[in-house]
Amino acid sequence: MAKKPELDDFRVPFFDGGKKLKTFDLTSVDCAAKPFSLGSKEADRARLSEIGAQLDELQEKLHAQRSQRVLLVLQGMDTSGKDGTIRAVFHEVDPLGLRIVPFKAPTETELAHDFLWRIHSQAPKVGELCVFNRSHYEDVLVPRVLNAIDDDECERRYRHIREFEALQADSGTTVIKCFLHISKDEQRQRLQARIDDPTKHWKFDTSDLEARKQWDDYQKAYATALGATSTEFAPWYVVPADSKSHRNVMIAELLLRTLQGMKLAFPPAKETLKGVIVE
Amino acid sequence: MAKKPELDDFRVPFFDGGKKLKTFDLTSVDCAAKPFSLGSKEADRARLSEIGAQLDELQEKLHAQRSQRVLLVLQGMDTSGKDGTIRAVFHEVDPLGLRIVPFKAPTETELAHDFLWRIHSQAPKVGELCVFNRSHYEDVLVPRVLNAIDDDECERRYRHIREFEALQADSGTTVIKCFLHISKDEQRQRLQARIDDPTKHWKFDTSDLEARKQWDDYQKAYATALGATSTEFAPWYVVPADSKSHRNVMIAELLLRTLQGMKLAFPPAKETLKGVIVE
Repeated sequence: MAKKPELDDFRVPFFDGGKKLKTFDLTSVDCAAKPFSLGSKEADRARLSEIGAQLDELQEKLHAQRSQRVLLVLQGMDTSGKDGTIRAVFHEVDPLGLRIVPFKAPTETELAHDFLWRIHSQAPKVGELCVFNRSHYEDVLVPRVLNAIDDDECERRYRHIREFEALQADSGTTVIKCFLHISKDEQRQRLQARIDDPTKHWKFDTSDLEARKQWDDYQKAYATALGATSTEFAPWYVVPADSKSHRNVMIAELLLRTLQGMKLAFPPAKETLKGVIVE
Repeated sequence: MAKKPELDDFRVPFFDGGKKLKTFDLTSVDCAAKPFSLGSKEADRARLSEIGAQLDELQEKLHAQRSQRVLLVLQGMDTSGKDGTIRAVFHEVDPLGLRIVPFKAPTETELAHDFLWRIHSQAPKVGELCVFNRSHYEDVLVPRVLNAIDDDECERRYRHIREFEALQADSGTTVIKCFLHISKDEQRQRLQARIDDPTKHWKFDTSDLEARKQWDDYQKAYATALGATSTEFAPWYVVPADSKSHRNVMIAELLLRTLQGMKLAFPPAKETLKGVIVE
């Protein structure tokens, strides 16, 4: 009997501090695999709804406890499903304790600062579950592919990212990062579907087609970035994402396990309130 | 046959620019009324879910269109159900296009600025549906009851609020404001329920009991503030909120009508994408 897949099998090995960067071999993960799927879309949807209810309960405790924070980083090529993941995984979660932060191309003001400036200002506060829809990782991907930064600058950025994430972790933030891994052919189908449906044109930027032409360069930039920034305190997971229902279930399971590991609980009852009668 | 209630029956008459402030008579609205309820909690829940699906669709268009914004302000006494409203009304809405902004007691930095500074920085951006959980109205309530500001300062603040909201409206933001109207007895029951359930103690602040002692002063401060700041471009609605299911349905209906009135639509198809084949 085949070994049951574990979430940790999809975790990128931790950066070991060595001088030589270890590139993670993205081709070792099959984009079309569905290791955490329950066999059908319906079963996956049912499981997702079950996890959703648990996430909602855990998030309420996170909010009540006001001592910890959670940061989920979502990265992936265009159409890899970052938006869809947020919609599906957080459907049951109370919007009160959730903050979604989309990062677009940096503005002039943002570019006038260091690349972590705009990221830091959006870091989660106590009790918050924060989702970064794209993130500081864009700054070691786009400029890398466009050759706007050289190897040295890129390695400095990796280091600054590790240190920034260490600061978050040291301050009580649990950080997890998901790379939504789709195949080039799956992207072709999804882009084509957007083009073929005029009501989806607003989601489409012609620069998406330019980025697609550099598919291999982006895969390479991701592979290096993942290898250089997966750490014990801020691990990267590679999520096979050609199947949307698998992608959702896997990320939900990962988040569930993460929150379950945080020892979340309602704060103790207040002795001063015992027996108080409201008039 | 009795006249079917209209949402506009619960709208606070617009400030007419007169010198003399018109206080809105809050006692004219029965907190226990359920004018928009469908007769049972189950029916209300079903209607809420129906509206939720429509809100979700409209919000996607708002997001796609990227030219308008929506700001919903929620105010009410402690336990009036601001959190519960957000949870219930936005359950179906994609968290991607929604931003919930809670305003707590101002920090030292916030107090070092004018009272609208922290509010302005959180104003919605294009495509966003933003919910303020408490707001700038706290600054004409708490200090008013505590006599920290006099009549003149209070009227100046009303004017600044009207002008601030006019700026939002002129910039393409649709502003609606809901006062969640509960009775003093309903609050007593809800506070007592929080005290009696130790897992709810974290929601309880002993200052809540202090504010309750000044119930009448708060009602008066609300009545004056609503009268002075209900405008055509940022109307106040008084929501009978002793019944949670009624409160949810009424606010959802209000939001639905508001979004339906905004002529939201997906942007036109891009001619340049016509016939494009992705390679």
